[in-house]
Amino acid sequence: MSHNQQKGTIQVQSDLAIAQNNEKNDILPITTIAANMGLSTDEIEVYGKYKAKLSYEAMNRLQHASQGKLVLVTSINPTPAGEGKSTVTIGLADGLNLLGKKTTVALREPSLGPVMGIKGGATGGGFAQVVPMEDINLHFTGDMHALTTANDTLAALIDNHLQQGNELNIDPRRIQWKRALDINDRALRNVVIGLGGHANGIPREDGFDITVASELMAVLCLADSIADLKERIARIVVAYTYDRQPVTVRDLGVQGAIAMLLKDAIKPNLVQTLAHTPAFIHGGPFANIAHGANSILATRAALGTGDIAITEAGFGADLGGEKFMDITAPAIGHLPDAVVIVATVRALKYNGGVKLADLSTPDVTALKSGYVNLHKHIENMQRYGRPVLVAINVFSQDSDEEIKTLQNLCAADGVTAYRTTVWADGGAGAEDLASAIIQAVDRGGDFKPLYDNERTSVTDKLTTIAQTIYGAKDVSYSIEAKRALRQIERNGWGHLPICVAKTQYSLSDNAKSLGAPSGFTLHVRDLIPKLGAGFIVAMTGSVLTMPGLPKHPAALDMDVDANGKITGLF
Amino acid sequence: MSHNQQKGTIQVQSDLAIAQNNEKNDILPITTIAANMGLSTDEIEVYGKYKAKLSYEAMNRLQHASQGKLVLVTSINPTPAGEGKSTVTIGLADGLNLLGKKTTVALREPSLGPVMGIKGGATGGGFAQVVPMEDINLHFTGDMHALTTANDTLAALIDNHLQQGNELNIDPRRIQWKRALDINDRALRNVVIGLGGHANGIPREDGFDITVASELMAVLCLADSIADLKERIARIVVAYTYDRQPVTVRDLGVQGAIAMLLKDAIKPNLVQTLAHTPAFIHGGPFANIAHGANSILATRAALGTGDIAITEAGFGADLGGEKFMDITAPAIGHLPDAVVIVATVRALKYNGGVKLADLSTPDVTALKSGYVNLHKHIENMQRYGRPVLVAINVFSQDSDEEIKTLQNLCAADGVTAYRTTVWADGGAGAEDLASAIIQAVDRGGDFKPLYDNERTSVTDKLTTIAQTIYGAKDVSYSIEAKRALRQIERNGWGHLPICVAKTQYSLSDNAKSLGAPSGFTLHVRDLIPKLGAGFIVAMTGSVLTMPGLPKHPAALDMDVDANGKITGLF
Repeated sequence: MSHNQQKGTIQVQSDLAIAQNNEKNDILPITTIAANMGLSTDEIEVYGKYKAKLSYEAMNRLQHASQGKLVLVTSINPTPAGEGKSTVTIGLADGLNLLGKKTTVALREPSLGPVMGIKGGATGGGFAQVVPMEDINLHFTGDMHALTTANDTLAALIDNHLQQGNELNIDPRRIQWKRALDINDRALRNVVIGLGGHANGIPREDGFDITVASELMAVLCLADSIADLKERIARIVVAYTYDRQPVTVRDLGVQGAIAMLLKDAIKPNLVQTLAHTPAFIHGGPFANIAHGANSILATRAALGTGDIAITEAGFGADLGGEKFMDITAPAIGHLPDAVVIVATVRALKYNGGVKLADLSTPDVTALKSGYVNLHKHIENMQRYGRPVLVAINVFSQDSDEEIKTLQNLCAADGVTAYRTTVWADGGAGAEDLASAIIQAVDRGGDFKPLYDNERTSVTDKLTTIAQTIYGAKDVSYSIEAKRALRQIERNGWGHLPICVAKTQYSLSDNAKSLGAPSGFTLHVRDLIPKLGAGFIVAMTGSVLTMPGLPKHPAALDMDVDANGKITGLF
Repeated sequence: MSHNQQKGTIQVQSDLAIAQNNEKNDILPITTIAANMGLSTDEIEVYGKYKAKLSYEAMNRLQHASQGKLVLVTSINPTPAGEGKSTVTIGLADGLNLLGKKTTVALREPSLGPVMGIKGGATGGGFAQVVPMEDINLHFTGDMHALTTANDTLAALIDNHLQQGNELNIDPRRIQWKRALDINDRALRNVVIGLGGHANGIPREDGFDITVASELMAVLCLADSIADLKERIARIVVAYTYDRQPVTVRDLGVQGAIAMLLKDAIKPNLVQTLAHTPAFIHGGPFANIAHGANSILATRAALGTGDIAITEAGFGADLGGEKFMDITAPAIGHLPDAVVIVATVRALKYNGGVKLADLSTPDVTALKSGYVNLHKHIENMQRYGRPVLVAINVFSQDSDEEIKTLQNLCAADGVTAYRTTVWADGGAGAEDLASAIIQAVDRGGDFKPLYDNERTSVTDKLTTIAQTIYGAKDVSYSIEAKRALRQIERNGWGHLPICVAKTQYSLSDNAKSLGAPSGFTLHVRDLIPKLGAGFIVAMTGSVLTMPGLPKHPAALDMDVDANGKITGLF
């Protein structure tokens, strides 16, 4: 939730203050939350009073208990005006529990890099938050750090292999495995390592990604057991030899050690919402540079412990939504029973050309003009064949006429748009939406995948995504991408699904192109096979796998007092 | 404990197998251990069933409860033959509890880098171990990862400051703050960052240290509260301006954010030995490149919860021992009431010229010849004025004649040497030593610091350490060190104590020089002021602040099975 907009107008309390106040008063021991879900004390491992991980036994048991319905929450393209997808996701789960449906929410873990950069977390906002929000937004249960360590230990083992004689004949110019940190650090995007003479490694070009962009993050989120985790790690292509043969982690013989470093990170984390709805928060790939959904182990656990599991996919329905349908849901083995698209009047007016400072002024014309963005996302989600609903995340400045207009526009597209006010009202602010969801998840419908992985070429899959989902005219490939394509085909990897890395701000690969652009060419500048994750990443436009910090990083305003109380974190 | 030697001859079980078997049978819930220490359930925060952190309230309460006696365990210079200092430290604490003295042990946290590189942990061995050893040796409660994140977030904020206009006029060639990872990675020792054009930072030389060498690790270990932590962080000199003025974290304005990232890491971790002795394991600076002792908060907590607190300092008495006396103990505010020096017959024979393969053959002549190393360490520790005892960590191959000879040699130096067999026998193997300690800690004695910080120049302090402790003839300074010295004097930092970075394998700065070398020159190649830690690091010889991996890294032999059970970790 872009709480900054909301807190100026509805409420002066910050999300942190609301979370801190409510935690003190209301937060339940995590053992109580677990007991309410039917988990015994032996089935969880507590991290302090309010966080826990599932034990292996519980994790494995719940993988096969899936009886709940799955609801995917996605959204229009994000704008500086704020959409509040996480907030609505959490509020909807609270709303369903208010109506007596046993509901569990499954979310991604926030990355610390952006937390220190630009304010705004992934723990919801107002009275629709997961708690303890400070812990979740900082080190949480250490999953992100375990991933960083595993990623960089693998990198060190590769460079050590070069240094110790290079038995595998690795070409240092063709090492694919980059280093990673959970930090926004543009100065590490392009580096030269191994300088300083013969005792200090082999000099070569390298770079750091943010940890959430690491293939290990995708592997952790798509693995369904430790055995699968280890097998996926073994398959990762880390380099090519001088004669261009792929070198995998299995060739290095360290899949056991790397999986060992992730033995706790693989267990889903359990916390709660302010309304005591159980929340699994586990895994956090970004949807612009990775597949953008929490772990399938967490989603399966949510499905195994309630009537309804609510999950969200990152950024807009063009990125997280499409990838959830074509990559994540097949891995879960459970397709969404309903899809919610979150939109705001403000964001649609921004898409219609209104400046950020003027968004509080009613402007039905701009709303109608900007609606094309939501229209396209509705159309995209409808084509998968499952019920689609729209949640209007209402701000106090939105006029009744604007909301009514938006509802009419949606109705004309065949979907119902529900008012939600969960930031201010918690679950009670999503009761209409929740009622509709209860009906929708039983409606069913034939699921229609976007493409057939096995029988479609890489370029045809990309063309399908670009034309059908993004509205592109065609796809162009750089020389590097063409070279990568030949390599992918030569190695027999063309059957993998495609994970497009693209700006989140536009349906196209140009961040400035709002609304519903068409007739454009999607520029693919590289294709990166991720054999462990099981997809091919198509790098488009200028999207970066390592963010930078802004002129005034959020870190400047953060503090901790003598009792450990935090200020300035949201 | 170099268990590899011991397990071949005494016992076929690995340390991991002993720990895993005993954990299953005997490990108590950490809440029980805490209750036995007089800690309420509100005073600890559990991390799973067998690990906890002290709450702020407990941490602060115990800082002022100090009534116990403090015993420092140190050793001769390490050799490939193994000394077993951690094992004796743990066994001694168990032995004291057997004799009815309420004893708590305070140890350092292992660094993951060496764990993945060369087998051998910091959790003791055999029947003198702290558990759960797998957790402690891997991610534990996340302290090391929090330090890495804090270190590298600060680095990113510095580079971002350069990129965003460099208001502080920082000279990119004079940035002192290096990046860090808890990984042995020689290829990151010397790097060039910020490549790739104007959007990707300012190109400059940089390097990575292992996290334990970060000044933040020293700061965490020497701070006595969050307020002190934040103030120490604020004082850290991260760079110099173009006109050579120091730039601190306070100038950047991010001490609050960096302290926030360490708000949980500052709390001491509580675990137990196999014999249920409470063990604080907290902070892990190496003694060769940093000050080499666990946190003063942990040691004070140990002093506050028992009759006797046992702590150890890293590597030999020339490094960890000296630094404990001159840096750590003054920060604790409690000087050691007794000092134990651990030695083995094997290691002394190695010092006497016997090859590793021949150490099982009795050789009294070589023992006598190698004794000079222990003699020097006894002399060094005796000069501080507190009772000194020797613990002989007995291996089954040691002959009675050898042990008797060693005891006689020590007696001639005025100290008693006790047989200990804690690897095989646990606390019962240290009963004689424990009885002697109970007497020794009440003996008292005037403490004589090695030098007077305030009234002695940097070079005089270094000369005193080099001549008195190491046996050097004199000290030489490189051009770089001389330049740094002028800068230190110009900035008025000369009153700080000295923390020498030196090889652990020799009393000199030449790793190959065993026994008790004399007449050598100590080569200082750089002087690095650490204003946050409150000492000046003198870099000598070729000691590295980032280790490398060996030809056959331990990672190659590690694995985790489908139930999360680890093999190959020791």
